[in-house]
Amino acid sequence: MHSGKQNFDLNQYIKGILSGDRATLSRAITLRESTLSEHKLLSEKLLKSLIKHTGNSIRIGVTGIPGAGKSTFIDVFGSYLIEKFNKKVAVLAVDPSSNENQGSILGDKTRMERLSRQKSAFIRPSPNKTILGGVNQYTRESMLFCEAAGYDIILIETVGVGQSEAKVHDMVDFLMMLQIVGGGDDLQAIKKGIYEKIDLILIHKADQNNKIEAEIEKVNFFKNFALFPKRDSGWHPRAQTCSSIEKTGISEVWNTIAEFEKITRENDSFFKNRKSQNSVWFHHLVANKIQDFITNQSDLKIEIKNLQKRIQNDEINSIEASERITETLKKIFGQV
Amino acid sequence: MHSGKQNFDLNQYIKGILSGDRATLSRAITLRESTLSEHKLLSEKLLKSLIKHTGNSIRIGVTGIPGAGKSTFIDVFGSYLIEKFNKKVAVLAVDPSSNENQGSILGDKTRMERLSRQKSAFIRPSPNKTILGGVNQYTRESMLFCEAAGYDIILIETVGVGQSEAKVHDMVDFLMMLQIVGGGDDLQAIKKGIYEKIDLILIHKADQNNKIEAEIEKVNFFKNFALFPKRDSGWHPRAQTCSSIEKTGISEVWNTIAEFEKITRENDSFFKNRKSQNSVWFHHLVANKIQDFITNQSDLKIEIKNLQKRIQNDEINSIEASERITETLKKIFGQV
Repeated sequence: MHSGKQNFDLNQYIKGILSGDRATLSRAITLRESTLSEHKLLSEKLLKSLIKHTGNSIRIGVTGIPGAGKSTFIDVFGSYLIEKFNKKVAVLAVDPSSNENQGSILGDKTRMERLSRQKSAFIRPSPNKTILGGVNQYTRESMLFCEAAGYDIILIETVGVGQSEAKVHDMVDFLMMLQIVGGGDDLQAIKKGIYEKIDLILIHKADQNNKIEAEIEKVNFFKNFALFPKRDSGWHPRAQTCSSIEKTGISEVWNTIAEFEKITRENDSFFKNRKSQNSVWFHHLVANKIQDFITNQSDLKIEIKNLQKRIQNDEINSIEASERITETLKKIFGQV
Repeated sequence: MHSGKQNFDLNQYIKGILSGDRATLSRAITLRESTLSEHKLLSEKLLKSLIKHTGNSIRIGVTGIPGAGKSTFIDVFGSYLIEKFNKKVAVLAVDPSSNENQGSILGDKTRMERLSRQKSAFIRPSPNKTILGGVNQYTRESMLFCEAAGYDIILIETVGVGQSEAKVHDMVDFLMMLQIVGGGDDLQAIKKGIYEKIDLILIHKADQNNKIEAEIEKVNFFKNFALFPKRDSGWHPRAQTCSSIEKTGISEVWNTIAEFEKITRENDSFFKNRKSQNSVWFHHLVANKIQDFITNQSDLKIEIKNLQKRIQNDEINSIEASERITETLKKIFGQV
């Protein structure tokens, strides 16, 4: 990505990010996503140096099925926050359909045309093809870099049903789901498990002839929500309507988030949630550390490569081969 | 799950599965999903004993967004295969919305009402809440158990866009995506990355007033597919229409799959694909082995627990805590 560019040292990264330089921010995220061990080491130092400058944003997840209009909404909503409140808005956009091509960067820029022209906006499309679509540890760490660079609104866009919600729920303060008017079939899929993670259902595209139907759906959502017990956070999920084209319901979304923040900060559930999210993050970091530690053992690397070859030659099956790995682990590390 | 039941030994599992007993099959899948190390050990032995009886099915992935009618299609399609060709059909159904509740088992049964009454059908809803929604290693291993039990058609149902397709693509022979008539917005999301994984786009709900529109969409898909280079497998993706309610287009789906199987078996890409899928599986198995080996070290367990506590008490941040893990790994295993 930055071939031909001079390598940055730790201080250049720190200085660049803390001064809010978007190019450095972008480079730091790329560095963190790198699989090279020197990059890992440097990016970890960077994270450690910056962590005291993080946490000062409201972290918002925006989810919904393809076609729900997430990008359009983020374009309008982000621009509104910048123009009206002088906020700095970072968007971590996930585009799971781009696993196998690199075409999404331009795509995301043009999908959020208005926002991408704002000086106070930073739009980062999803990482490279090695990461399967949704959010992951790097999304969380990208978010921390954005916070250190002074962004006070972080919008994490994610696609899908179930998997993505669970993961993004582990890293945001507030999770909203966009729903299209008349997408009734989707309701079957939105069962208890997802409901419990969503703070706001936003019935999108509530414009033109859709307005009345959108209002009816809103009421239905409220009825459904009423069936669920009150959450420990004191927040009860809501449903609202919104049109990004007609720009209606936009400020109301912000009002709801602000109210959520006020309530949960006052009763401390805001920080309780962030703390428990830190545990999840730690868990991922540990898994990585272990994986790195082990797979750096050259004996094991060679063994894995050999076994891969033997599987391809039908000399051994995968399950037998995996047993050999346990043997090799014992041989390398001894029976601890 | 089988509390109160007598524990099966390896031979009982083998005998039960090879005789096609559905209760034993179901129990074996539960055993494999267990996190208890004795269950892991037993299920691995079972897999190893059964592996020579696997591989004799056609493995079909059925994907599409919520509301596309996947369950309804599988209900009709599976019943057709049983009634017309005397096939044995196993359905591994994924219900990502049920992460937090256990209510999906009945749900899946009733969603596939006709199929669930068939003696030659086996329907297994998605695993428990520890597995995030989509398909995973256990789905592949469940599939192997089903094959050993004599099922010759395996249907893997999965929801979502991007993530799930990539994962299910790593374990099936043939991947179809259900698309609703008029779901035009979804097309934007189906970019090159997903196209490249799909063997058949099935335009579903092509009934009543939708028929003409469905035909138009089919032609559009063909036009899109024409833009892509021919695959190494010799297969060029297709688009077809289908109605599960009117039962039209069902036999045509089977004809396409049969043709796919014939072509890819003749040019050997069928087995090449399965071999490269075995490598992916091995990769997952290795990751598990390493994780198991390491986390069974009690010193490390204690250290992780302590650090979790200190993170909760704000005495240390996650990134610093994860560095301690590397130190502990070095202390336990030495600088190998």
